Amino acid sequence: MTGSLVIVGTGPGKADLMTPATAAALERATDLVGYGPYLDRVAVTRADQCRHASDNRVELDRARHALSLAAAGRQVVVVSGGDPGVFAMASAIFEAVETGDAAWRTLDIRVEPGVTAMLAAAAEVGAPLGGDFCAISLSDNLKAWATVERRLRAAAEADFVIALYNPASKARPHQLGQAFDLLRSIRSADTPVLFVRAAGTAESKVVTTTLAAADGALADMRTLVIVGASTTRRVGRWVYTPRREAGARP
Amino acid sequence: MTGSLVIVGTGPGKADLMTPATAAALERATDLVGYGPYLDRVAVTRADQCRHASDNRVELDRARHALSLAAAGRQVVVVSGGDPGVFAMASAIFEAVETGDAAWRTLDIRVEPGVTAMLAAAAEVGAPLGGDFCAISLSDNLKAWATVERRLRAAAEADFVIALYNPASKARPHQLGQAFDLLRSIRSADTPVLFVRAAGTAESKVVTTTLAAADGALADMRTLVIVGASTTRRVGRWVYTPRREAGARP
Repeated sequence: MTGSLVIVGTGPGKADLMTPATAAALERATDLVGYGPYLDRVAVTRADQCRHASDNRVELDRARHALSLAAAGRQVVVVSGGDPGVFAMASAIFEAVETGDAAWRTLDIRVEPGVTAMLAAAAEVGAPLGGDFCAISLSDNLKAWATVERRLRAAAEADFVIALYNPASKARPHQLGQAFDLLRSIRSADTPVLFVRAAGTAESKVVTTTLAAADGALADMRTLVIVGASTTRRVGRWVYTPRREAGARP
Repeated sequence: MTGSLVIVGTGPGKADLMTPATAAALERATDLVGYGPYLDRVAVTRADQCRHASDNRVELDRARHALSLAAAGRQVVVVSGGDPGVFAMASAIFEAVETGDAAWRTLDIRVEPGVTAMLAAAAEVGAPLGGDFCAISLSDNLKAWATVERRLRAAAEADFVIALYNPASKARPHQLGQAFDLLRSIRSADTPVLFVRAAGTAESKVVTTTLAAADGALADMRTLVIVGASTTRRVGRWVYTPRREAGARP
Protein backbone atom coordinates (compact mmCIF):
# COMPACT_ATOMS: atom_id res chain seq x y z
CA MET A 1 0.00 0.00 0.00
CA THR A 2 1.29 3.49 -0.79
CA GLY A 3 2.08 5.60 2.21
CA SER A 4 1.07 9.18 2.84
CA LEU A 5 1.87 12.01 5.22
CA VAL A 6 -0.58 14.67 6.35
CA ILE A 7 0.60 17.55 8.53
CA VAL A 8 -2.20 18.89 10.73
CA GLY A 9 -2.83 21.31 13.58
CA THR A 10 -5.35 20.52 16.28
CA GLY A 11 -6.25 24.19 16.65
CA PRO A 12 -5.87 26.02 19.96
CA GLY A 13 -7.28 23.23 22.12
CA LYS A 14 -11.08 23.01 22.24
CA ALA A 15 -12.31 20.09 20.14
CA ASP A 16 -14.82 22.31 18.32
CA LEU A 17 -12.01 24.52 16.99
CA MET A 18 -10.38 21.63 15.10
CA THR A 19 -11.47 21.53 11.46
CA PRO A 20 -13.42 18.50 10.21
CA ALA A 21 -10.70 18.00 7.54
CA THR A 22 -8.12 17.56 10.29
CA ALA A 23 -10.41 15.28 12.30
CA ALA A 24 -10.92 13.12 9.20
CA ALA A 25 -7.15 12.90 8.58
CA LEU A 26 -6.59 11.83 12.19
CA GLU A 27 -9.31 9.20 11.85
CA ARG A 28 -7.69 7.69 8.74
CA ALA A 29 -4.14 7.60 10.12
CA THR A 30 -2.32 4.39 10.95
CA ASP A 31 0.40 6.38 12.72
CA LEU A 32 0.34 9.67 14.65
CA VAL A 33 3.61 11.50 15.22
CA GLY A 34 3.96 14.54 17.47
CA TYR A 35 4.86 16.22 20.70
CA GLY A 36 3.19 14.31 23.53
CA PRO A 37 0.77 16.99 24.81
CA TYR A 38 -0.57 17.57 21.27
CA LEU A 39 -1.11 13.85 20.74
CA ASP A 40 -2.96 13.74 24.06
CA ARG A 41 -5.55 16.10 22.59
CA VAL A 42 -6.45 13.57 19.91
CA ALA A 43 -9.20 11.16 20.94
CA VAL A 44 -8.45 7.46 20.50
CA THR A 45 -10.91 6.18 17.89
CA ARG A 46 -9.02 3.15 16.56
CA ALA A 47 -7.23 0.46 18.51
CA ASP A 48 -4.85 -0.21 15.59
CA GLN A 49 -3.41 3.32 15.49
CA CYS A 50 0.23 3.72 16.58
CA ARG A 51 1.20 6.86 18.51
CA HIS A 52 4.77 8.08 18.34
CA ALA A 53 5.12 10.74 21.05
CA SER A 54 8.32 12.73 21.31
CA ASP A 55 9.93 15.64 23.08
CA ASN A 56 9.29 19.18 21.81
CA ARG A 57 12.94 19.93 20.99
CA VAL A 58 13.63 17.34 18.33
CA GLU A 59 11.56 18.57 15.42
CA LEU A 60 13.82 17.43 12.61
CA ASP A 61 14.26 13.96 14.09
CA ARG A 62 10.50 13.69 14.45
CA ALA A 63 10.03 14.87 10.86
CA ARG A 64 12.46 12.24 9.54
CA HIS A 65 10.75 9.55 11.56
CA ALA A 66 7.36 10.54 10.11
CA LEU A 67 8.73 10.57 6.56
CA SER A 68 10.37 7.16 6.95
CA LEU A 69 7.08 5.70 8.23
CA ALA A 70 5.24 7.14 5.21
CA ALA A 71 7.93 5.81 2.88
CA ALA A 72 7.35 2.37 4.41
CA GLY A 73 3.70 2.54 3.39
CA ARG A 74 2.05 3.87 6.55
CA GLN A 75 -0.71 6.50 6.60
CA VAL A 76 1.04 9.04 8.81
CA VAL A 77 -0.35 12.20 10.41
CA VAL A 78 2.04 14.66 12.02
CA VAL A 79 0.25 16.53 14.80
CA SER A 80 0.99 20.13 15.84
CA GLY A 81 -1.13 22.47 17.91
CA GLY A 82 -2.74 25.48 16.22
CA ASP A 83 -1.92 25.67 12.52
CA PRO A 84 0.90 23.35 11.42
CA GLY A 85 2.51 26.03 9.24
CA VAL A 86 2.89 28.69 11.96
CA PHE A 87 5.90 28.05 14.21
CA ALA A 88 5.11 24.35 14.04
CA MET A 89 5.92 21.08 12.27
CA ALA A 90 5.21 21.74 8.57
CA SER A 91 8.43 23.66 8.07
CA ALA A 92 10.48 20.90 9.71
CA ILE A 93 8.90 18.27 7.45
CA PHE A 94 9.89 20.11 4.28
CA GLU A 95 13.37 20.74 5.62
CA ALA A 96 13.68 17.01 6.27
CA VAL A 97 12.44 16.31 2.73
CA GLU A 98 15.05 18.65 1.28
CA THR A 99 17.95 17.25 3.28
CA GLY A 100 16.88 13.59 3.41
CA ASP A 101 16.28 10.51 1.26
CA ALA A 102 15.59 11.51 -2.39
CA ALA A 103 12.60 9.13 -2.45
CA TRP A 104 10.84 11.32 0.12
CA ARG A 105 10.31 13.98 -2.58
CA THR A 106 7.82 11.74 -4.36
CA LEU A 107 5.76 10.97 -1.23
CA ASP A 108 2.11 11.95 -1.02
CA ILE A 109 2.38 14.91 1.42
CA ARG A 110 -0.44 17.26 2.35
CA VAL A 111 -0.84 20.12 4.84
CA GLU A 112 -4.18 20.82 6.54
CA PRO A 113 -4.57 24.41 7.80
CA GLY A 114 -5.88 25.09 11.30
CA VAL A 115 -6.78 27.88 13.71
CA THR A 116 -3.49 29.33 14.93
CA ALA A 117 -3.11 30.71 18.46
CA MET A 118 -3.18 34.41 17.57
CA LEU A 119 -6.59 34.05 15.93
CA ALA A 120 -8.01 32.30 18.99
CA ALA A 121 -6.42 34.88 21.28
CA ALA A 122 -7.76 37.76 19.20
CA ALA A 123 -11.26 36.28 19.24
CA GLU A 124 -11.22 36.16 23.04
CA VAL A 125 -10.66 39.91 23.32
CA GLY A 126 -12.47 41.32 20.27
CA ALA A 127 -10.65 42.18 17.06
CA PRO A 128 -7.15 43.41 17.89
CA LEU A 129 -5.79 42.01 14.58
CA GLY A 130 -8.27 44.14 12.60
CA GLY A 131 -5.53 46.02 10.73
CA ASP A 132 -2.17 45.00 9.26
CA PHE A 133 -0.34 42.73 11.70
CA CYS A 134 2.70 40.53 12.13
CA ALA A 135 3.60 37.39 14.02
CA ILE A 136 7.01 37.06 15.65
CA SER A 137 8.35 34.14 17.67
CA LEU A 138 10.38 35.51 20.59
CA SER A 139 12.36 32.30 20.90
CA ASP A 140 16.03 32.62 20.04
CA ASN A 141 16.56 28.88 19.89
CA LEU A 142 16.44 29.04 16.10
CA LYS A 143 17.46 32.61 15.31
CA ALA A 144 19.62 35.33 16.77
CA TRP A 145 18.09 37.65 19.37
CA ALA A 146 19.34 40.53 17.20
CA THR A 147 16.96 39.30 14.46
CA VAL A 148 14.05 39.36 16.90
CA GLU A 149 14.93 42.92 17.94
CA ARG A 150 15.29 44.06 14.34
CA ARG A 151 11.82 42.73 13.50
CA LEU A 152 10.23 44.14 16.65
CA ARG A 153 11.66 47.57 15.84
CA ALA A 154 10.53 47.46 12.20
CA ALA A 155 7.03 46.31 13.15
CA ALA A 156 6.68 48.98 15.84
CA GLU A 157 7.95 51.77 13.60
CA ALA A 158 5.64 50.77 10.74
CA ASP A 159 2.68 50.55 13.16
CA PHE A 160 1.79 46.89 12.75
CA VAL A 161 -0.23 45.09 15.41
CA ILE A 162 2.28 42.57 16.80
CA ALA A 163 1.44 39.02 17.89
CA LEU A 164 4.21 37.44 19.96
CA TYR A 165 4.46 33.65 19.92
CA ASN A 166 6.66 31.76 22.43
CA PRO A 167 6.97 34.90 24.59
CA ALA A 168 8.64 33.14 27.52
CA SER A 169 9.82 29.80 28.82
CA LYS A 170 11.75 28.60 31.85
CA ALA A 171 14.95 28.87 29.83
CA ARG A 172 14.04 32.34 28.50
CA PRO A 173 12.29 34.28 31.28
CA HIS A 174 13.62 37.75 30.45
CA GLN A 175 13.17 38.20 26.71
CA LEU A 176 9.58 39.43 26.81
CA GLY A 177 10.60 42.18 29.23
CA GLN A 178 13.40 43.15 26.87
CA ALA A 179 10.92 43.20 23.99
CA PHE A 180 8.57 45.48 25.93
CA ASP A 181 11.49 47.81 26.75
CA LEU A 182 12.33 48.04 23.06
CA LEU A 183 8.69 48.65 22.07
CA ARG A 184 8.30 51.31 24.78
CA SER A 185 11.09 53.30 23.10
CA ILE A 186 8.98 53.50 19.91
CA ARG A 187 5.29 53.07 20.73
CA SER A 188 3.00 55.18 22.89
CA ALA A 189 2.77 54.26 26.60
CA ASP A 190 -1.01 53.73 26.35
CA THR A 191 -0.78 51.17 23.53
CA PRO A 192 -3.05 48.25 24.50
CA VAL A 193 -1.21 45.04 25.36
CA LEU A 194 -3.02 41.72 25.75
CA PHE A 195 -1.85 38.59 27.50
CA VAL A 196 -4.06 35.69 26.48
CA ARG A 197 -3.24 32.44 28.23
CA ALA A 198 -4.57 29.14 26.89
CA ALA A 199 -6.64 30.90 24.22
CA GLY A 200 -9.30 28.71 22.69
CA THR A 201 -9.35 26.29 25.62
CA ALA A 202 -11.71 25.97 28.59
CA GLU A 203 -9.06 27.56 30.86
CA SER A 204 -8.43 30.71 28.83
CA LYS A 205 -7.54 33.85 30.74
CA VAL A 206 -7.11 37.39 29.43
CA VAL A 207 -5.16 40.29 30.93
CA THR A 208 -5.61 43.63 29.20
CA THR A 209 -3.07 46.30 30.06
CA THR A 210 -0.95 49.01 28.45
CA LEU A 211 2.57 49.02 27.10
CA ALA A 212 3.62 51.23 30.03
CA ALA A 213 2.36 48.68 32.55
CA ALA A 214 3.11 45.47 30.64
CA ASP A 215 5.13 43.02 32.75
CA GLY A 216 6.94 40.22 30.98
CA ALA A 217 6.49 38.00 34.03
CA LEU A 218 2.77 37.70 33.18
CA ALA A 219 3.54 35.35 30.27
CA ASP A 220 4.50 31.70 30.14
CA MET A 221 4.76 29.03 27.43
CA ARG A 222 0.99 28.94 26.94
CA THR A 223 0.56 32.72 26.56
CA LEU A 224 0.07 34.65 23.35
CA VAL A 225 0.87 38.36 23.63
CA ILE A 226 -0.65 40.98 21.34
CA VAL A 227 0.70 44.54 21.23
CA GLY A 228 -1.70 46.97 19.56
CA ALA A 229 -1.05 49.49 16.78
CA SER A 230 -1.51 53.24 17.29
CA THR A 231 -5.18 52.88 16.37
CA THR A 232 -5.95 49.87 18.60
CA ARG A 233 -8.57 50.83 21.20
CA ARG A 234 -10.68 49.56 24.07
CA VAL A 235 -14.45 49.63 24.12
CA GLY A 236 -15.81 48.18 27.35
CA ARG A 237 -14.20 44.78 27.87
CA TRP A 238 -13.27 44.54 24.21
CA VAL A 239 -10.16 45.61 22.28
CA TYR A 240 -10.20 46.20 18.54
CA THR A 241 -8.13 47.75 15.76
CA PRO A 242 -10.24 49.74 13.26
CA ARG A 243 -9.66 48.84 9.64
CA ARG A 244 -9.80 52.52 8.72
CA GLU A 245 -6.82 54.66 9.67
CA ALA A 246 -7.07 58.36 10.45
CA GLY A 247 -6.60 60.27 7.20
CA ALA A 248 -7.97 57.58 4.86
CA ARG A 249 -10.12 58.81 2.03
CA PRO A 250 -13.80 58.91 3.00
CA MET B 1 -35.68 36.43 25.11
CA THR B 2 -32.21 37.97 25.36
CA GLY B 3 -30.47 38.54 22.06
CA SER B 4 -26.92 37.64 21.16
CA LEU B 5 -24.42 38.31 18.45
CA VAL B 6 -21.74 35.86 17.28
CA ILE B 7 -19.18 36.94 14.69
CA VAL B 8 -17.91 33.99 12.66
CA GLY B 9 -15.77 33.17 9.64
CA THR B 10 -16.67 30.34 7.30
CA GLY B 11 -13.01 29.58 6.63
CA PRO B 12 -11.54 29.68 3.13
CA GLY B 13 -14.45 27.92 1.44
CA LYS B 14 -14.47 24.12 1.74
CA ALA B 15 -17.08 22.98 4.25
CA ASP B 16 -14.55 20.79 6.06
CA LEU B 17 -12.39 23.83 6.85
CA MET B 18 -15.15 25.51 8.87
CA THR B 19 -14.82 24.83 12.60
CA PRO B 20 -17.59 22.88 14.37
CA ALA B 21 -17.99 25.83 16.78
CA THR B 22 -18.85 28.10 13.84
CA ALA B 23 -21.16 25.50 12.33
CA ALA B 24 -22.97 25.22 15.67
CA ALA B 25 -23.35 29.00 15.93
CA LEU B 26 -24.80 29.14 12.42
CA GLU B 27 -27.23 26.36 13.32
CA ARG B 28 -28.52 28.22 16.39
CA ALA B 29 -28.94 31.60 14.67
CA THR B 30 -32.32 33.17 14.00
CA ASP B 31 -30.68 35.78 11.77
CA LEU B 32 -27.62 35.65 9.51
CA VAL B 33 -26.04 38.93 8.42
CA GLY B 34 -23.27 39.18 5.83
CA TYR B 35 -21.98 39.81 2.36
CA GLY B 36 -24.08 37.76 -0.07
CA PRO B 37 -21.40 35.35 -1.37
CA TYR B 38 -20.39 34.43 2.20
CA LEU B 39 -24.01 33.76 3.17
CA ASP B 40 -24.34 31.56 0.09
CA ARG B 41 -21.70 29.25 1.56
CA VAL B 42 -23.89 28.54 4.58
CA ALA B 43 -26.22 25.57 4.09
CA VAL B 44 -29.89 26.19 4.85
CA THR B 45 -30.73 24.00 7.82
CA ARG B 46 -33.71 25.86 9.28
CA ALA B 47 -36.68 27.30 7.44
CA ASP B 48 -37.20 29.95 10.15
CA GLN B 49 -33.77 31.55 9.73
CA CYS B 50 -33.70 35.07 8.25
CA ARG B 51 -30.84 35.96 5.90
CA HIS B 52 -29.82 39.59 5.57
CA ALA B 53 -27.47 39.77 2.58
CA SER B 54 -25.70 43.01 1.79
CA ASP B 55 -23.09 44.56 -0.46
CA ASN B 56 -19.41 44.22 0.47
CA ARG B 57 -18.79 47.95 0.84
CA VAL B 58 -21.11 48.82 3.69
CA GLU B 59 -19.47 47.13 6.63
CA LEU B 60 -20.46 49.62 9.32
CA ASP B 61 -24.10 49.74 8.19
CA ARG B 62 -24.16 45.95 8.24
CA ALA B 63 -22.60 45.94 11.72
CA ARG B 64 -25.23 48.37 13.05
CA HIS B 65 -28.00 46.32 11.51
CA ALA B 66 -26.68 43.17 13.18
CA LEU B 67 -26.37 44.91 16.55
CA SER B 68 -29.89 46.33 16.38
CA LEU B 69 -31.27 42.86 15.61
CA ALA B 70 -29.42 41.41 18.62
CA ALA B 71 -30.67 44.29 20.81
CA ALA B 72 -34.20 43.39 19.71
CA GLY B 73 -33.73 39.87 21.09
CA ARG B 74 -32.64 37.96 17.99
CA GLN B 75 -29.85 35.34 17.92
CA VAL B 76 -27.67 36.96 15.29
CA VAL B 77 -24.63 35.55 13.51
CA VAL B 78 -22.48 37.87 11.41
CA VAL B 79 -20.80 35.88 8.63
CA SER B 80 -17.38 36.66 7.13
CA GLY B 81 -15.14 34.45 5.05
CA GLY B 82 -11.89 33.17 6.56
CA ASP B 83 -11.37 34.39 10.13
CA PRO B 84 -13.72 37.19 11.19
CA GLY B 85 -10.93 39.15 12.88
CA VAL B 86 -8.58 39.37 9.87
CA PHE B 87 -9.61 42.10 7.39
CA ALA B 88 -13.23 41.16 8.04
CA MET B 89 -16.34 41.99 10.07
CA ALA B 90 -15.28 41.70 13.73
CA SER B 91 -13.50 45.05 13.69
CA ALA B 92 -16.54 46.78 12.15
CA ILE B 93 -18.81 45.33 14.84
CA PHE B 94 -16.71 46.74 17.68
CA GLU B 95 -16.42 50.08 15.92
CA ALA B 96 -20.22 50.16 15.65
CA VAL B 97 -20.49 49.27 19.35
CA GLU B 98 -18.15 52.12 20.28
CA THR B 99 -19.91 54.73 18.15
CA GLY B 100 -23.50 53.48 18.52
CA ASP B 101 -26.30 52.95 21.06
CA ALA B 102 -24.90 52.70 24.61
CA ALA B 103 -27.08 49.65 25.24
CA TRP B 104 -25.08 47.73 22.64
CA ARG B 105 -22.13 47.61 25.07
CA THR B 106 -24.03 45.22 27.32
CA LEU B 107 -24.98 42.81 24.54
CA ASP B 108 -23.83 39.21 24.58
CA ILE B 109 -21.16 39.35 21.83
CA ARG B 110 -18.77 36.56 20.94
CA VAL B 111 -16.15 36.03 18.22
CA GLU B 112 -15.43 32.57 16.80
CA PRO B 113 -11.99 32.20 15.21
CA GLY B 114 -11.61 30.57 11.80
CA VAL B 115 -9.02 29.54 9.21
CA THR B 116 -7.89 32.75 7.50
CA ALA B 117 -6.89 32.80 3.83
CA MET B 118 -3.13 33.00 4.32
CA LEU B 119 -3.12 29.77 6.33
CA ALA B 120 -5.10 27.95 3.64
CA ALA B 121 -2.86 29.41 0.93
CA ALA B 122 0.29 28.44 2.82
CA ALA B 123 -0.97 24.88 3.30
CA GLU B 124 -1.49 24.52 -0.46
CA VAL B 125 2.18 25.21 -1.20
CA GLY B 126 4.00 23.82 1.85
CA ALA B 127 5.08 25.99 4.77
CA PRO B 128 6.01 29.44 3.45
CA LEU B 129 4.88 31.08 6.74
CA GLY B 130 7.34 28.92 8.70
CA GLY B 131 9.24 31.94 10.07
CA ASP B 132 8.17 35.38 11.28
CA PHE B 133 5.57 36.84 8.94
CA CYS B 134 3.17 39.71 8.44
CA ALA B 135 -0.21 40.25 6.82
CA ILE B 136 -0.88 43.45 4.89
CA SER B 137 -4.07 44.43 3.08
CA LEU B 138 -3.12 46.18 -0.17
CA SER B 139 -6.45 47.98 -0.35
CA ASP B 140 -6.25 51.72 0.09
CA ASN B 141 -9.99 52.09 0.60
CA LEU B 142 -9.45 52.38 4.35
CA LYS B 143 -5.88 53.63 4.62
CA ALA B 144 -3.45 55.78 2.67
CA TRP B 145 -1.31 54.08 0.02
CA ALA B 146 1.69 55.68 1.71
CA THR B 147 0.89 53.57 4.80
CA VAL B 148 0.86 50.42 2.68
CA GLU B 149 4.24 51.35 1.18
CA ARG B 150 5.73 52.14 4.58
CA ARG B 151 4.68 48.73 5.91
CA LEU B 152 5.88 46.87 2.81
CA ARG B 153 9.28 48.54 3.10
CA ALA B 154 9.58 47.80 6.82
CA ALA B 155 8.55 44.17 6.35
CA ALA B 156 10.96 43.66 3.46
CA GLU B 157 13.88 45.29 5.24
CA ALA B 158 13.31 43.25 8.41
CA ASP B 159 13.01 40.05 6.34
CA PHE B 160 9.47 39.03 7.24
CA VAL B 161 7.53 36.66 5.00
CA ILE B 162 4.74 38.88 3.64
CA ALA B 163 1.15 37.77 3.04
CA LEU B 164 -0.79 40.22 0.87
CA TYR B 165 -4.57 40.29 1.30
CA ASN B 166 -6.80 42.12 -1.21
CA PRO B 167 -3.94 42.34 -3.71
CA ALA B 168 -6.07 43.60 -6.59
CA SER B 169 -9.59 44.50 -7.65
CA LYS B 170 -11.20 46.01 -10.73
CA ALA B 171 -10.91 49.42 -9.08
CA ARG B 172 -7.28 48.82 -8.04
CA PRO B 173 -5.54 46.87 -10.84
CA HIS B 174 -2.07 48.45 -10.52
CA GLN B 175 -1.23 48.40 -6.81
CA LEU B 176 0.19 44.90 -6.67
CA GLY B 177 2.62 45.78 -9.46
CA GLN B 178 3.67 48.86 -7.52
CA ALA B 179 4.14 46.72 -4.42
CA PHE B 180 6.35 44.27 -6.35
CA ASP B 181 8.41 47.20 -7.71
CA LEU B 182 8.97 48.44 -4.17
CA LEU B 183 9.88 44.96 -2.89
CA ARG B 184 12.28 44.41 -5.83
CA SER B 185 14.24 47.44 -4.65
CA ILE B 186 14.88 45.70 -1.30
CA ARG B 187 14.60 41.93 -1.69
CA SER B 188 16.61 39.53 -3.82
CA ALA B 189 15.31 38.85 -7.36
CA ASP B 190 15.06 35.10 -6.68
CA THR B 191 12.78 35.52 -3.63
CA PRO B 192 9.91 33.01 -4.03
CA VAL B 193 6.52 34.61 -4.73
CA LEU B 194 3.29 32.60 -4.57
CA PHE B 195 -0.08 33.44 -6.08
CA VAL B 196 -2.72 31.22 -4.53
CA ARG B 197 -6.17 31.71 -6.01
CA ALA B 198 -9.23 30.38 -4.19
CA ALA B 199 -7.09 28.69 -1.53
CA GLY B 200 -8.97 26.12 0.50
CA THR B 201 -11.66 25.63 -2.14
CA ALA B 202 -12.12 22.95 -4.79
CA GLU B 203 -10.94 25.42 -7.48
CA SER B 204 -7.65 26.40 -5.89
CA LYS B 205 -4.76 27.22 -8.20
CA VAL B 206 -1.15 27.94 -7.32
CA VAL B 207 1.46 29.85 -9.32
CA THR B 208 4.99 29.75 -7.92
CA THR B 209 7.41 32.30 -9.33
CA THR B 210 10.14 34.71 -8.25
CA LEU B 211 10.09 38.34 -7.27
CA ALA B 212 11.93 39.19 -10.51
CA ALA B 213 9.20 37.54 -12.61
CA ALA B 214 6.17 38.34 -10.45
CA ASP B 215 3.41 40.00 -12.48
CA GLY B 216 0.68 41.87 -10.62
CA ALA B 217 -1.80 40.99 -13.36
CA LEU B 218 -1.78 37.36 -12.08
CA ALA B 219 -3.87 38.34 -9.04
CA ASP B 220 -7.53 39.14 -8.60
CA MET B 221 -9.92 39.57 -5.66
CA ARG B 222 -9.73 35.88 -4.79
CA THR B 223 -5.93 35.67 -4.78
CA LEU B 224 -3.67 35.60 -1.76
CA VAL B 225 -0.06 36.54 -2.51
CA ILE B 226 2.86 35.40 -0.37
CA VAL B 227 6.33 36.92 -0.78
CA GLY B 228 9.06 34.85 0.85
CA ALA B 229 11.80 35.90 3.25
CA SER B 230 15.50 35.57 2.40
CA THR B 231 15.45 32.00 3.74
CA THR B 232 12.29 30.84 1.92
CA ARG B 233 13.12 28.01 -0.48
CA ARG B 234 11.69 25.54 -2.97
CA VAL B 235 11.97 21.80 -2.64
CA GLY B 236 10.29 20.03 -5.53
CA ARG B 237 6.77 21.41 -5.86
CA TRP B 238 6.86 22.74 -2.28
CA VAL B 239 7.92 26.08 -0.83
CA TYR B 240 8.89 26.48 2.82
CA THR B 241 10.59 28.89 5.19
CA PRO B 242 12.94 27.16 7.64
CA ARG B 243 12.39 28.09 11.27
CA ARG B 244 16.13 28.21 11.80
CA GLU B 245 17.99 31.17 10.33
CA ALA B 246 21.58 31.03 9.17
CA GLY B 247 23.80 31.92 12.12
CA ALA B 248 21.45 30.71 14.87
CA ARG B 249 23.13 28.95 17.75
CA PRO B 250 23.32 25.18 17.17
